Amino acid sequence: MAVDDRLLTDLRAATMADGAAPYGLIHDAEIAIRDGAIAWVGPRAERPDEFASLPVSPQGGRLVTPGLIDCHTHIVHGGNRAAEFELRLNGASYEEVARAGGGIVSTVQATRAADEAALVASALPRLDALLAEGVTTLEVKSGYGLDRDTELAMLRAARALPRHRPVRVVTSFLGAHAVPADYAGRADAYVDDVCIPTLRAAHAEGLVDAVDGFCEGIAFSPGQIARVFDAACELGLPVKLHAEQLSNLGGARLAASYGALSADHVEYLDEEGVRAMAEAGTVAVVLPGAFYALRETQAPPIAAFREHGVPIALATDCNPGSSPMTSLLLAMNMGCTLFRLTPEEALAGVTRNAARALGLTDCGTIAPGQRADLAVWDVEEPAELAYRIGFNPLHARIFADGAA
Amino acid sequence: MAVDDRLLTDLRAATMADGAAPYGLIHDAEIAIRDGAIAWVGPRAERPDEFASLPVSPQGGRLVTPGLIDCHTHIVHGGNRAAEFELRLNGASYEEVARAGGGIVSTVQATRAADEAALVASALPRLDALLAEGVTTLEVKSGYGLDRDTELAMLRAARALPRHRPVRVVTSFLGAHAVPADYAGRADAYVDDVCIPTLRAAHAEGLVDAVDGFCEGIAFSPGQIARVFDAACELGLPVKLHAEQLSNLGGARLAASYGALSADHVEYLDEEGVRAMAEAGTVAVVLPGAFYALRETQAPPIAAFREHGVPIALATDCNPGSSPMTSLLLAMNMGCTLFRLTPEEALAGVTRNAARALGLTDCGTIAPGQRADLAVWDVEEPAELAYRIGFNPLHARIFADGAA
Ligand SMILES: [Zn+2]
Ligand SMILES: [Zn+2]
Repeated sequence: MAVDDRLLTDLRAATMADGAAPYGLIHDAEIAIRDGAIAWVGPRAERPDEFASLPVSPQGGRLVTPGLIDCHTHIVHGGNRAAEFELRLNGASYEEVARAGGGIVSTVQATRAADEAALVASALPRLDALLAEGVTTLEVKSGYGLDRDTELAMLRAARALPRHRPVRVVTSFLGAHAVPADYAGRADAYVDDVCIPTLRAAHAEGLVDAVDGFCEGIAFSPGQIARVFDAACELGLPVKLHAEQLSNLGGARLAASYGALSADHVEYLDEEGVRAMAEAGTVAVVLPGAFYALRETQAPPIAAFREHGVPIALATDCNPGSSPMTSLLLAMNMGCTLFRLTPEEALAGVTRNAARALGLTDCGTIAPGQRADLAVWDVEEPAELAYRIGFNPLHARIFADGAA
Repeated sequence: MAVDDRLLTDLRAATMADGAAPYGLIHDAEIAIRDGAIAWVGPRAERPDEFASLPVSPQGGRLVTPGLIDCHTHIVHGGNRAAEFELRLNGASYEEVARAGGGIVSTVQATRAADEAALVASALPRLDALLAEGVTTLEVKSGYGLDRDTELAMLRAARALPRHRPVRVVTSFLGAHAVPADYAGRADAYVDDVCIPTLRAAHAEGLVDAVDGFCEGIAFSPGQIARVFDAACELGLPVKLHAEQLSNLGGARLAASYGALSADHVEYLDEEGVRAMAEAGTVAVVLPGAFYALRETQAPPIAAFREHGVPIALATDCNPGSSPMTSLLLAMNMGCTLFRLTPEEALAGVTRNAARALGLTDCGTIAPGQRADLAVWDVEEPAELAYRIGFNPLHARIFADGAA
């Protein structure tokens, strides 16, 4: 059931409409909501009479932005890696951590041990933390099952989240996340025997909105990723890629050649890769939480993205290993502090450009025809959303589809 | 009115008692609360009969820690510096920011323009964010008035906070925070004509628990700080110091020579300073939020603190310029991630050692006679408190003095 029709009054709107004033800001604004969609937004003085009959909902002069969009998460997974975090800080070597069962292996084990209901239950507190900061849409990846049944269970759990909370979920199949232990040294066999057949099964069940992969020396080669992407193309599914996080294997260029929605991380991306993304319209999704947690030092090529017009999105990368982060506002602050994004770029990165990274055209800005997904903030200026560290000024969240 | 007498059962207690098991952890623990204090803590099997008559409050197997203590904040201040944050990220030079009225000057102006009620009102949302994470005691500094009336108003506002929220506040007089514009180039005159007389006035009003200063090239010299500390000694007040944040002026050594409670920041501290702190029992308060926000690269000498037995505390440094941070859990994560503290050191830094940094002996651990300031967490292991980024697993907060 859609959110009730209403006319939001007494507010400033950061519409995030492209090419307008900074933040697409409209002072003395009003927003008309009808049938779960934005019917009109503009200065109070210009509001058409047809909306005068809507129930009025005054916002006390607050700032209204599009609902936030977290376009890269691994929020569905079993277990946590706090013990490994502690081991490392107590000086354990990489080998000692591995011997203690640490690393992605431990998350795969915990995820395989959980059923769909347990995966949903453990994801809900993380989801609640995101929603409390105004998130209305999030992407959720599989990729900790690495076998058919668990990959399907992860995607079913992701699809189940909107039955428990008022949120929109977009899924990505990430079978090509890591080579599971039982296929060690046989990545090609894993891709052909497990990953691609599981993708087909998941798609047949309607569980897949896009296909993702991890292109890196410790994961899959460009050739292996290409085979997964070929299978995605056959199924008519868009692709995206974890690329150039730790080294430059030309992953973003490969993804762009498939018209990818996004290339994510991209710290080690070169100019050629930036050009390829610009030509393909591929969004750069930067993930400062992982950069921070891994104490990386090479930031993504933000200046080149600006120069070539590559849209920049920003996400939590919420995952138990390299970014156990559940605050998109903190990701905005880290995007500014660590990657020198401007506060306006950071907000565009979790609204307009995040929608684009998910292939969504009905959200991410406040404009007629867009979903009525909105966040109302107790702040004076939009820059405050990125400026504060560990503070949540959300006053209210409006979700187009109403309550769960 | 003290919190109701009760027996907390079905819990694990991270007592943080020194020298015990890691985290002072007791499995299958119970905690008896009587007259707002811990009457007993230990394994269920050893609980004396005298506590059997207390009303039982089962904790569902959750982890209980001491209430958290934020021992270094500037939470009372006017305005914010989001506009300056945005200007800098848009490429403004230091001079352009200064011409636009940025820097500490802008916070001094906004603080002088606010009265005590306005200072309280603007501090409450920040305070609420800290309390929501289990903080039961916090320190609040003056230092954005830099004139007699505003310094007094800041301290009165700090003293007023416990009338609005269930929290304990410890104040520090920080008149020697910066040289105000009207005393530019006349720091000595400011110290003698404003800072020390204002300290005496504030003390006469019962507003001062400790005396702080900022010893740095851009603030006050060791000689000037020594004059302020001499005045503190005359009044019988303990001292502490912002020292060695940006350079090494021997501030921590100076503070130690006065038996200081703490030396704070201390990124540029040398071995001699560490030894002096160890001999004086001065706590090192590390502030990773400011380190992060300023993109500093030199971490404080954690290994030397460990070697010489200097207690390490950890705080938000919540302030509008260099650390607009209101999450002590995030400070714990940053302490681990950026300074390589262990999760146990991080928790000690916001409990046992934070109490010591404030000269408090009645809080910071779970032990008989301590205040019943406790935090109850939805976590399996204490390390999870530092591991997560932007997630609040607090289940409940117990405050010795009851509700506000
Ligand atoms: Zn990822
Ligand atoms: Zn400070």
